[in-house]
Amino acid sequence: MTTTHKVYLAGPEVFFPNGQDLMARKGALALQYGFSPSTMAEEALDPTGVSAFAFGCQISAANEKMMRDADFIIANLTPFRGIAADVGTAYEVGFMCALGRPSFAYTNSARGYFERLSEDYYEGKTRVGTDGVIRGPDGLMLENHGMVDNLMLDGGIDALGGTLVRNDVPAEQAYDDLWAFEECLKAARQFLDAAAKP
Amino acid sequence: MTTTHKVYLAGPEVFFPNGQDLMARKGALALQYGFSPSTMAEEALDPTGVSAFAFGCQISAANEKMMRDADFIIANLTPFRGIAADVGTAYEVGFMCALGRPSFAYTNSARGYFERLSEDYYEGKTRVGTDGVIRGPDGLMLENHGMVDNLMLDGGIDALGGTLVRNDVPAEQAYDDLWAFEECLKAARQFLDAAAKP
Repeated sequence: MTTTHKVYLAGPEVFFPNGQDLMARKGALALQYGFSPSTMAEEALDPTGVSAFAFGCQISAANEKMMRDADFIIANLTPFRGIAADVGTAYEVGFMCALGRPSFAYTNSARGYFERLSEDYYEGKTRVGTDGVIRGPDGLMLENHGMVDNLMLDGGIDALGGTLVRNDVPAEQAYDDLWAFEECLKAARQFLDAAAKP
Repeated sequence: MTTTHKVYLAGPEVFFPNGQDLMARKGALALQYGFSPSTMAEEALDPTGVSAFAFGCQISAANEKMMRDADFIIANLTPFRGIAADVGTAYEVGFMCALGRPSFAYTNSARGYFERLSEDYYEGKTRVGTDGVIRGPDGLMLENHGMVDNLMLDGGIDALGGTLVRNDVPAEQAYDDLWAFEECLKAARQFLDAAAKP
């Protein structure tokens, strides 16, 4: 019998109309794989009489405490309100990588960052300069490392033996589909079981 | 005489047409305030014969090493290719916060995340639901903590005594203006000098 590992569930779900339901489904799936999902001690948070800023800081502190208590993170890096991952989630992956805890992540968009950037953001209006660098009409460089997102995310996940799952999901289901999330649970289970072997 | 502190300079400058110049200017300013700016050992990186992905991982590992060697971070959180900060920079702020190193940050956009989100991203087409929650036409919730960006960023910076400077710069100068960067240097100098007092 292995020790129960705690997983920190990161992603922009809190903003989704069906966020509560999604988080409950994620928590139930985590339990099926023998993991204890992080849950915030809601009672410890009280917006009464504090500014919106101070309350935001309370939530941040509670999340950081949960991360320090967790053995690993599963992060939803599906592009959020643009072509990149949610910055709060990116912060959290960096936080866990600094602590040396493995990150498992997924995106419900199969295309890489370069494709989203050149096709969606720049609408194909990129050019190769005399220096060989691909730039947008705004002069900004397009990097292409064949990665899901910024190299700090993909690189940090890779360095600690984590997995980044790409899932080709129709855009309208990008916020609902949990197949790739479950693949992360499987990868984490395998990783932690292997690490626990004598 | 105080020990020379190392500063990790984070931001999307590497993508800018004038990125090299900006980084040089930032490094020179850091030195003026008595800080040693992080610089990558370029010679340790060699793209020859490795995949684009593997080379991205080399850059990531080099950046993480520089962060572990640094005493604090100054992060450029000016919105990048959308309404939020660069996700790589967000990762790096999270990384440093996990290590307990203070973060100083700035944005060359004076408006908060809520304003950029409701005015720019949703173009004013938000509504307040029967539950009192403000949502976009896509059903996604708008949070308003009076913050510059996602609460993990603002909260993480605040928790360790750092500063987040907002600077009202015309959009066309958002990538060039270093006034707020220098304010971060001043704040860091003050913070570290105070911490060093017996």
